[in-house]
Amino acid sequence: MTVGVMEITRPTLLIDEIIVKKNIRNMVAKAERSGTELTPHFKTHQSRAVGLWFRDQGIKSITVSSVSMAQYFADDGWQKITIAFPLNILEIKEIATLASKIELTVLVTNKEQIMALQTYAEVYVKVLIEIDCGSHRSVLDRHDQLIADLILMLQHSQHQFQGFYSHFGHTYAAKSASEVGEIYHKSLKILTDLQLKYAYAKPTISLGDTPSCSIIDDFSRIVSLHAGNFVFYDLMQVQIGACDESCIGVVLACPVVSKDHERLEAIIYGGGVHLSKESMFDTDLSVSIYSKIVHLAENGWTKSIRGCYVKSISQEHGVVKLSAKAFNDLKIGDIIGVLPVHSCMTADVMGGYVDINGNIIDHM
Amino acid sequence: MTVGVMEITRPTLLIDEIIVKKNIRNMVAKAERSGTELTPHFKTHQSRAVGLWFRDQGIKSITVSSVSMAQYFADDGWQKITIAFPLNILEIKEIATLASKIELTVLVTNKEQIMALQTYAEVYVKVLIEIDCGSHRSVLDRHDQLIADLILMLQHSQHQFQGFYSHFGHTYAAKSASEVGEIYHKSLKILTDLQLKYAYAKPTISLGDTPSCSIIDDFSRIVSLHAGNFVFYDLMQVQIGACDESCIGVVLACPVVSKDHERLEAIIYGGGVHLSKESMFDTDLSVSIYSKIVHLAENGWTKSIRGCYVKSISQEHGVVKLSAKAFNDLKIGDIIGVLPVHSCMTADVMGGYVDINGNIIDHM
Repeated sequence: MTVGVMEITRPTLLIDEIIVKKNIRNMVAKAERSGTELTPHFKTHQSRAVGLWFRDQGIKSITVSSVSMAQYFADDGWQKITIAFPLNILEIKEIATLASKIELTVLVTNKEQIMALQTYAEVYVKVLIEIDCGSHRSVLDRHDQLIADLILMLQHSQHQFQGFYSHFGHTYAAKSASEVGEIYHKSLKILTDLQLKYAYAKPTISLGDTPSCSIIDDFSRIVSLHAGNFVFYDLMQVQIGACDESCIGVVLACPVVSKDHERLEAIIYGGGVHLSKESMFDTDLSVSIYSKIVHLAENGWTKSIRGCYVKSISQEHGVVKLSAKAFNDLKIGDIIGVLPVHSCMTADVMGGYVDINGNIIDHM
Repeated sequence: MTVGVMEITRPTLLIDEIIVKKNIRNMVAKAERSGTELTPHFKTHQSRAVGLWFRDQGIKSITVSSVSMAQYFADDGWQKITIAFPLNILEIKEIATLASKIELTVLVTNKEQIMALQTYAEVYVKVLIEIDCGSHRSVLDRHDQLIADLILMLQHSQHQFQGFYSHFGHTYAAKSASEVGEIYHKSLKILTDLQLKYAYAKPTISLGDTPSCSIIDDFSRIVSLHAGNFVFYDLMQVQIGACDESCIGVVLACPVVSKDHERLEAIIYGGGVHLSKESMFDTDLSVSIYSKIVHLAENGWTKSIRGCYVKSISQEHGVVKLSAKAFNDLKIGDIIGVLPVHSCMTADVMGGYVDINGNIIDHM
């Protein structure tokens, strides 16, 4: 990465194509072993270029989190898209237009959404009913009488009821791989019970949080996996046990602008507008951190430097706590690498990447 | 705001021109009463249109947080700009170009920065030495021997040493207006002591956190105020005691996509990529919140609805806790208003505004 780094003068999100492609290959292989379709969530990278790396691995169906993101990827030739966000009836016109062009799958949780779909007689979509298994970001739980009503409405419509979709968002709060496993199996039980209860409608099961998809091996009950974060991973996923630090595929390159000799801290050009304000409690360091620090190397970056982390951020500033050795090695005007706590948010605020060869990679 | 709201289908950052102009007028008048120059920080709004509202109030000097932001506003005709971020020596070429066009003020905290300035013989800038008064986002404190060295270096250069600059960032953690007052006076004492110590160099004092600028009345010791957030304010400033909720000049309009009858919650289209992930502990509600909720009205928005707040967010989702009445009043497909915890971050991730008449207002 020598050439690129030499030219960097302000916060720049570096992407390591080799790591990212390996993450993609691993998840594709895992889905194949279970006979499950990988329908990767593109909200993490939001990039047509990265999308091509998935296409090269045989991926044909993708997931997005908004209508505008669906439009962005449909315009790039993706023909099968799931919008994994409760259908927003105010965008029904845009949804209808999209559905006339591609094979669109939408998520519903209420009657209003199905009625909105019915206002466009020419619209045909596949429909997943979203189920809450404990993350409480969704609203229908297994006891809900509404599920039967929604299935009935769909059976009397031109749309095709596919099955149940759930995002096990509570795995993101897990402290270990085994805790992810417990949440996964408990949540899956809710969905398989529903599958039995509504067997007459032949519902499938779709899901896709990155912790589950990384830690669990057998997805034979699942028709499609919609995870997204695994493409880049991040420090949160390392802490959960979903991956190793070497799987993190993006790093924010930040100029060092000043050094505090008394506190062994450096101020970097890199703050909330570059990294996002997402933090995590690091169990090893026993402090809240916004990032760990790496050295940029010729073909990528090193492992994180022990005891060094971003302790606070404001809009453009990051305050980096350093070990004595790291402090002494660091010069004003150096570029250091900053591993994101949550890569989806960092990619979104940065809005673009630079690869190892200095090429610009798009972001929606 | 009827017309605008009727057309909103996805998260949209609304700006109330009347409130914002009043916030600007109040701060201009306050600075005038102390005979202090208001050099407003444009990092909050990052908007040429909002910049014009300041220009209409007689503002001639502005503050920004990056070289690229300085370029953006210089291109719009601003002739006096302070970059209130430690000079990034990797951008010295861009800084030199800017300094050849406008009256540029920069912040330094180390010798490397002054040496970098010296590599461009034709460059002339005004220089402020940044002092840490307790926020620890900067690196030079009152005891630092380096201060004298930096002044000496500047006196032997073509650049003009102006004085000391400090951002009292620790006021943002204050719990009350009186606590802001204590921090302010303690911090100011550090700067006035330095002013005495280095009287031979005739240093001025510049500062500008929004809590201090809003709560303190007498700025007679201060040559320039660089606050920025006051243009919009936000929930954090209300809690600190810097303003009343009626001073908040931006609100995020969000579609309601589903309702949870059991938990009295709504899911809105509006998450971390719209609001940022900044949260605060609300002392009245005794919970961490990402926003309070308002109704959108014909000419703006109402006061926040008691007991209603955004309790969690993910990338595109917001989960809103509602009172029983608010829950019953709310329909799927409604648009609700969401007051930001930190307006600078929300404006940055949204990257644009819509005014009460439906006009688009730029953001860098």
